[in-house]
Amino acid sequence: MHTPSLSSATGQPPQKGSLILGDHLLTGVSLPAMVLHQKVIEHNIAWMQHFADHHHAHLAPHGKTTMMPALFSRQIEAGAWGITLATAPQCAAAFAHGVKRLLMANQLIGQANMALVAQMIEDGLDFYCTVDHADNVRALNDFFAARGQQLQVLIELGVADGRCGVRDGEALSALVEVIRQAPALRLAGIEGYEGMIGGDSALEDVRAYGARLVETVRHLHDSGVLATPAPIVTASGSKWFDLIAEAFDQAELREHYTPVLRPGCYVAHDHRLYREAMEAVSERRPELEGTLEPALEVFAQVQSLPEPGLAIVAMGKRDISCDPDLPMALRLYRDGALVREVSGWQVVHIMDQHTFLRVPEEADIQIEDVIAFGASHPCLTFDKWRQGLWVDDDLAVTAVEPTFF
Amino acid sequence: MHTPSLSSATGQPPQKGSLILGDHLLTGVSLPAMVLHQKVIEHNIAWMQHFADHHHAHLAPHGKTTMMPALFSRQIEAGAWGITLATAPQCAAAFAHGVKRLLMANQLIGQANMALVAQMIEDGLDFYCTVDHADNVRALNDFFAARGQQLQVLIELGVADGRCGVRDGEALSALVEVIRQAPALRLAGIEGYEGMIGGDSALEDVRAYGARLVETVRHLHDSGVLATPAPIVTASGSKWFDLIAEAFDQAELREHYTPVLRPGCYVAHDHRLYREAMEAVSERRPELEGTLEPALEVFAQVQSLPEPGLAIVAMGKRDISCDPDLPMALRLYRDGALVREVSGWQVVHIMDQHTFLRVPEEADIQIEDVIAFGASHPCLTFDKWRQGLWVDDDLAVTAVEPTFF
Repeated sequence: MHTPSLSSATGQPPQKGSLILGDHLLTGVSLPAMVLHQKVIEHNIAWMQHFADHHHAHLAPHGKTTMMPALFSRQIEAGAWGITLATAPQCAAAFAHGVKRLLMANQLIGQANMALVAQMIEDGLDFYCTVDHADNVRALNDFFAARGQQLQVLIELGVADGRCGVRDGEALSALVEVIRQAPALRLAGIEGYEGMIGGDSALEDVRAYGARLVETVRHLHDSGVLATPAPIVTASGSKWFDLIAEAFDQAELREHYTPVLRPGCYVAHDHRLYREAMEAVSERRPELEGTLEPALEVFAQVQSLPEPGLAIVAMGKRDISCDPDLPMALRLYRDGALVREVSGWQVVHIMDQHTFLRVPEEADIQIEDVIAFGASHPCLTFDKWRQGLWVDDDLAVTAVEPTFF
Repeated sequence: MHTPSLSSATGQPPQKGSLILGDHLLTGVSLPAMVLHQKVIEHNIAWMQHFADHHHAHLAPHGKTTMMPALFSRQIEAGAWGITLATAPQCAAAFAHGVKRLLMANQLIGQANMALVAQMIEDGLDFYCTVDHADNVRALNDFFAARGQQLQVLIELGVADGRCGVRDGEALSALVEVIRQAPALRLAGIEGYEGMIGGDSALEDVRAYGARLVETVRHLHDSGVLATPAPIVTASGSKWFDLIAEAFDQAELREHYTPVLRPGCYVAHDHRLYREAMEAVSERRPELEGTLEPALEVFAQVQSLPEPGLAIVAMGKRDISCDPDLPMALRLYRDGALVREVSGWQVVHIMDQHTFLRVPEEADIQIEDVIAFGASHPCLTFDKWRQGLWVDDDLAVTAVEPTFF
């Protein structure tokens, strides 16, 4: 039995989701808490690594989903080539926890962020970021040249109506020319993100985009403008990773290039958005063995039963993703034990600290009951927490792992 | 000039929004950053304290908005009676930073959370929480009686179709009876939250609810069931604080009761939701001098200009509220100086780490330009940050203050 303490070993007050009265999730923890089912995490990490290996691609899981270095370590131990991130502070958090190769799939903007990266490169980080504009290329060159450093960059290839990235061959050629005049920059390959593609012809468009990335990196390689012996070609979120993997799975690429897949959400998976995406992958690729499983849940307690058929749960927008879907009630626990799986209990509204759950008027639900909730979009659940609880099959907490958002 | 460091004094990697190359927001900070304009914060704190004083009410600002103890200290120094919070871990964070009176305007659920509160009461905290259900009353009584402690509680009075709280006089009487049989509980008054009220007759309904709260606390006081000499009656979010203040502003209340207002968002205010609420207050109360001002902004940089009329800003859902409104571009800075206020630049989409800003095709906008953004609902911006930068009128950073979400 733990003694509750108002300051942890770090001298800080206990956070939400902390162990207070023991290490069992249902009896010892200040709920709500973010929970990771350890076996499922391990399964998902192994599944995606196997998928990448099978397609002769490297894996650089997008770490911005979780920002949990304990997961980065597991992903790298399982065979990941590196970790992908979105910002310089995210890279600093990963590097401080031992990750030695980082692909920042984003532009590096601003002198303070450049300084963060410069320090890490000096300290031994193998770092890549993307460029898509001559002004950024010149600013990076000025900054890193002044320090006598070199910066590895990938040109981001965008799609029309998309996010960042050069849109066409003309812009690409012009940017290559600017990079050639930037001696502090080493052009290491091509980066893209197919997740911006949508609409009726999405599948064909994603495949065409994958082919365009391959064709572009080949063209640059043949032109002699790439500064690395095995140029990088990289794309893939967690929705169409199979299509990008197929586009990259070519003998020439595996021999002379470095194809890199970057899914992030797969490690936690989810209960709707990526579940449905995975179902679509399995339909396209019926020969794939197994599937990703949802590993992430938020456990919370019923705090009020003010009207028949309405339960107010002590969990809010600050604890779980409500975008693009409201949370989903999965299972009910009472007195430290599972009562049953629930279905038809519907979250109808969520506020900062409260969730409104519609239940049948005759439902067996009580104050202090614990409910496990699933959600869509793991990125927007992880970032609500400074730590997550890893649990075993009996809901004993096996680790309390910090996040770095 | 600071030397960039990958670990701060705490041994942690630098967070987003940290000072890296100096203490000027535009040249030294890793953007994006959450920014609090110090003078405006001080103005808002003084304005609301004066408002409460003028209405003979105590102020217990809702701290869940900011979870920034540096703000709690300022609010208490300015005259606040205590701080309101929503959860036991939030209370632990405030108590660890010196707040001695906390009103948890929520039910206290679960043994781990009760243990947190019990420890704080033992350590000298003046603590109040709400109850609305017999089962919770019995659980609290069992827990605190076993420790030989007493717990001060307020009955939460709800509204039909609202959130927590007893809905009618019958439920109220039944709950009072259960509390009378709970020797570890001291019934200290009545709590309500008018923010759930909406619709066409909202103004009348809020006024009626304020009157009902007053009438109820009087009734309980007269019945002799309250265990405190100056019973508490408390309500008020940041939208209709004037109406609740008016309902509480009675000679009898100020002499024999403890009326407490609990607005939270006022300290940072915002650029739409609460700005409009304040405009409505000023219309209802034209004699009020001055107004609340928006103090909270997020500064971020242009990272890509991929198509005419489209800027991608390095800021996302993880950095600023996008609920109920998308962020609003306010001002443009370049090379460390203000260029101009902007209008008509419209955020059209936001992703986890990127904001899509539509600008006129002929707009003067460049890579690395810094844009100050405002937002609706300060609660959902504060909780995206582990620290906020307090700045003076020249955008020099005067303090880096941690949050405890």
